[in-house]
Amino acid sequence: MIKPVVSSERTRVKRLASLAQYDSELIHAILDEANVCHVGFVDDGQPYVIPTAIARIGHHVYIHGSRVSRMLKCLAQGQPACITVTLLDGIVVARSAFNSSMNYRSVVILGKAEKVTGAKKVAVLDAFTEHLIPGRTKDIRPSRPKELAATTVLRFSLEEASAKVSAGPPSDEKSDYDSDTWAGVVPLKMTRGSPQSDPKLRKGIRLPRYLTDS
Amino acid sequence: MIKPVVSSERTRVKRLASLAQYDSELIHAILDEANVCHVGFVDDGQPYVIPTAIARIGHHVYIHGSRVSRMLKCLAQGQPACITVTLLDGIVVARSAFNSSMNYRSVVILGKAEKVTGAKKVAVLDAFTEHLIPGRTKDIRPSRPKELAATTVLRFSLEEASAKVSAGPPSDEKSDYDSDTWAGVVPLKMTRGSPQSDPKLRKGIRLPRYLTDS
Repeated sequence: MIKPVVSSERTRVKRLASLAQYDSELIHAILDEANVCHVGFVDDGQPYVIPTAIARIGHHVYIHGSRVSRMLKCLAQGQPACITVTLLDGIVVARSAFNSSMNYRSVVILGKAEKVTGAKKVAVLDAFTEHLIPGRTKDIRPSRPKELAATTVLRFSLEEASAKVSAGPPSDEKSDYDSDTWAGVVPLKMTRGSPQSDPKLRKGIRLPRYLTDS
Repeated sequence: MIKPVVSSERTRVKRLASLAQYDSELIHAILDEANVCHVGFVDDGQPYVIPTAIARIGHHVYIHGSRVSRMLKCLAQGQPACITVTLLDGIVVARSAFNSSMNYRSVVILGKAEKVTGAKKVAVLDAFTEHLIPGRTKDIRPSRPKELAATTVLRFSLEEASAKVSAGPPSDEKSDYDSDTWAGVVPLKMTRGSPQSDPKLRKGIRLPRYLTDS
């Protein structure tokens, strides 16, 4: 069941290594649940971390943005990148500050970008739309050549990726279990509210089923 | 009202610069609402992005963790870092893929760490606890010398920080407003569920008010 995704020393999880997992299915599930990723890149010796949309197709993840974005220009040159996805599941309220922590599922991907062009670019842009709102692509017009030209799409292999999962109740010092203090987990969840129509929406346009059902 | 936090060329927001803000109050509010930050650092030419807890006191932010963490060891040496906080507020469902995006509030901090030691370290560790659960510190035992020794605390100035805020309905191409497609915003919110008691909690310990009221 455990399919190793990575054997590289660089992606081997070092801290709390017992939480590390290299199972493709788990990595894919975490990536697919994320609304955004955080991309790390280096420009002139300075690291930058920028939030951006992510989409996965098979064993690759994709990011995209304006052709003139500094981040995408740096990464398109093949500079090393780190793409991190974090899903927060809870605040672990332990009997001491030292053992208090978070429950989370995260993926860290190391690699270098490949630029995506041509027909594949169209398919990947659809994947970004479907990633956040399944069913949406059939409801919007195709991208125009000018829009495609203004957009850079980059892909990264999941060859060097690892997941880290922290779940469950606090793990306290033995002597702390006698404490009178409450301990447990406060669950965290990213929730979607009721869709709010654009004030400029033409009258009579109803919310599509792919948004009422989600 | 606008208090410039930064005038550095490095933190001047380049893409969608109209969304950029350098107001301390806004930056503080975004940092204070975050459950985690993403820290970028460079080790052997490779950028890494790691999620971790954050706390703010005045015009500094703090991160902490195990004394043996690679990230904290790298940063404690004074290597350049980037700390990014992202709050997702919604999915902007535009009439085209090109104009679809996210509503968010983010802060990007550039800087180098200073190590925090002595009595200040205790105060900062309290700040981490209070950041996520106000009122908690008075309910738990003080950290032990062994725990303090095992923990590295680093601080970063907010001198080089900028915020970026994207809010409101989609901004579509003029010709797309005739479309029959629904458009608007799907709100996103990080919500806290009902606290779940540790299965090992001693009988008779009730949920504290600072958790029932939050």
